Amino acid sequence: MLLLLEDIKVKRKPIYHIRIKATILTENMTRIVIAIGGNAILNPVKGNPEEAKQKIDETCREIAGIIDKGYDVVLTHGNGPQIGNILAMQEECGLVHPQPLDVCGAQTQGMLGYSLQQSLDNRLKRRRMDRKVITVLTQVVVDDSGSSFENPTKPIGLYYQEYRAQEMIALGTRMVKDKNGYRRVVPSPEPVQIVEDEAIKKLVSEGFTVIAAGGGGIPVIRKNGLLTGVEAVIDKDLTGSLLAASVGAELFLILTDVDKVSLNYGEDNQLELDEMTVLEAGRYIKEGHFGKGSMEPKVRSGINFVNSGGRYAIISSLEKALPALEGTAGTRIIR
Amino acid sequence: MLLLLEDIKVKRKPIYHIRIKATILTENMTRIVIAIGGNAILNPVKGNPEEAKQKIDETCREIAGIIDKGYDVVLTHGNGPQIGNILAMQEECGLVHPQPLDVCGAQTQGMLGYSLQQSLDNRLKRRRMDRKVITVLTQVVVDDSGSSFENPTKPIGLYYQEYRAQEMIALGTRMVKDKNGYRRVVPSPEPVQIVEDEAIKKLVSEGFTVIAAGGGGIPVIRKNGLLTGVEAVIDKDLTGSLLAASVGAELFLILTDVDKVSLNYGEDNQLELDEMTVLEAGRYIKEGHFGKGSMEPKVRSGINFVNSGGRYAIISSLEKALPALEGTAGTRIIR
Repeated sequence: MLLLLEDIKVKRKPIYHIRIKATILTENMTRIVIAIGGNAILNPVKGNPEEAKQKIDETCREIAGIIDKGYDVVLTHGNGPQIGNILAMQEECGLVHPQPLDVCGAQTQGMLGYSLQQSLDNRLKRRRMDRKVITVLTQVVVDDSGSSFENPTKPIGLYYQEYRAQEMIALGTRMVKDKNGYRRVVPSPEPVQIVEDEAIKKLVSEGFTVIAAGGGGIPVIRKNGLLTGVEAVIDKDLTGSLLAASVGAELFLILTDVDKVSLNYGEDNQLELDEMTVLEAGRYIKEGHFGKGSMEPKVRSGINFVNSGGRYAIISSLEKALPALEGTAGTRIIR
Repeated sequence: MLLLLEDIKVKRKPIYHIRIKATILTENMTRIVIAIGGNAILNPVKGNPEEAKQKIDETCREIAGIIDKGYDVVLTHGNGPQIGNILAMQEECGLVHPQPLDVCGAQTQGMLGYSLQQSLDNRLKRRRMDRKVITVLTQVVVDDSGSSFENPTKPIGLYYQEYRAQEMIALGTRMVKDKNGYRRVVPSPEPVQIVEDEAIKKLVSEGFTVIAAGGGGIPVIRKNGLLTGVEAVIDKDLTGSLLAASVGAELFLILTDVDKVSLNYGEDNQLELDEMTVLEAGRYIKEGHFGKGSMEPKVRSGINFVNSGGRYAIISSLEKALPALEGTAGTRIIR
């Protein structure tokens, strides 16, 4: 970090002095995994690519600010709208053979990893920080022992009208109906292992800012030691907590579209929380305070991270990310 | 490498002995960059995904054999058919906003990197080799000073009929006509720098097998130190030679669909070459012996690698890859 230059009285061998100082500082940096959602990326397929680029740049400006405060960041991100659009093109276009979900997920890791990496790299350069950003393609081993594969619950891709949905169901596609129509549902199994964890850890230790496990990771299972992709999607926050534990992060920061976690959300007696213990958080989940596909997995990810040895997890918004790290915003999940 | 077990008399501290031996061996391993083309991957979008998976597995079986012989491999690959299909879906489907070429390239790095990485990893495991395969998303800075951006020459994507092509040309798309119809042409500038070279080198030094710079890399330019993607594609073999030089590889192996480079290719006096010096190779290019978009850039990539300090480059087929490394097949380009 070039800021160091100001702090050091450079005499005869400036490069030597700076290197030593930089090394010591890197070791003292707080390692943190940050998970950002679709709101922080916008929809770079459906939206105007220029608008998407600008939104990504705003996100990366905040992330660069966090890195500049001395945090060693591993960044992970969602891919909902992007994988949805790839599926829509495959299903509706009929021009090419549809790819399975694991391959589509890998495509979004490439697309979003690149966009985030380039933008973050540029934001760091503007701050005169000599940090390189690297995207590591990440497979995540999922648990295929439970019921998630028998009873898929995660809706993805386009909405279909009744007649079309019935055709797809007849061909074996699992679908669910909500107020907007029918959607395909796929398994959303629990993540159990980050396949590339060693490489990610190595790169972080060497001072790289790493983007990993995008879209919750590419879902794979391991049989007789060999990996195979599966038709599933993984919750990005659950994978984020596993990633945070795997790379030995002290903190896990989940950025979403609200500043704090609330009890009785949207009701008259809504209560914003500054802090909750893992026990309290578990009780709130049981009491049904959090949306199933939205806040609940975030709180559960925070609990998982703390239970696996992490210091604490924070849930907040992109805008409040820095104050949340400083303890003046967001909701902390503690032991 | 577990093969070592047979060579070592294990007594009281077997793990200690093996570790030392393995470390020494790793340092003595020959670092090599291997470039594989579309034929080694098949078309995983248009083709049946199962067939594509099998073809990729056959390729990775050979690559694993090379690693098992003691080579430290960095693998790079083409993406012609895959990026073509993404463009076709975007152009013909009309469902989503078309992405620029750099983002499409990033998508193919994700898709193909994942497929190759998983398959290679499994092939190494079957050989009981404890080597991890990592895909690093790779941007490549291109030369935007020359004429490549003013006079784009590289045809990509779908063929269009005359009436449609005329509409596209009227909207500003550059197109060329060949015997199959009209195709879009884009710039194919020279690669000048691998943005992620440090991370790739670090991972290779740590014993990872790295997949990098897929599809010739994501094309970017650097202005005032900041990176921006550009609408271009980069020749994967030219990028391969730059990658090989950047990671300090001793050898650069280009795998294609012929076993050797030939003079007077396809004619009565066709002459297969075992070896050529960079001077001879340069002369053959001038004499027009090699196809412009096919063998010529491969020979030129070999020359570039040797001229930038590499020991030698080899051009051969996947089937002859190992004999080519042992000096009994393929065409060598030497100093």
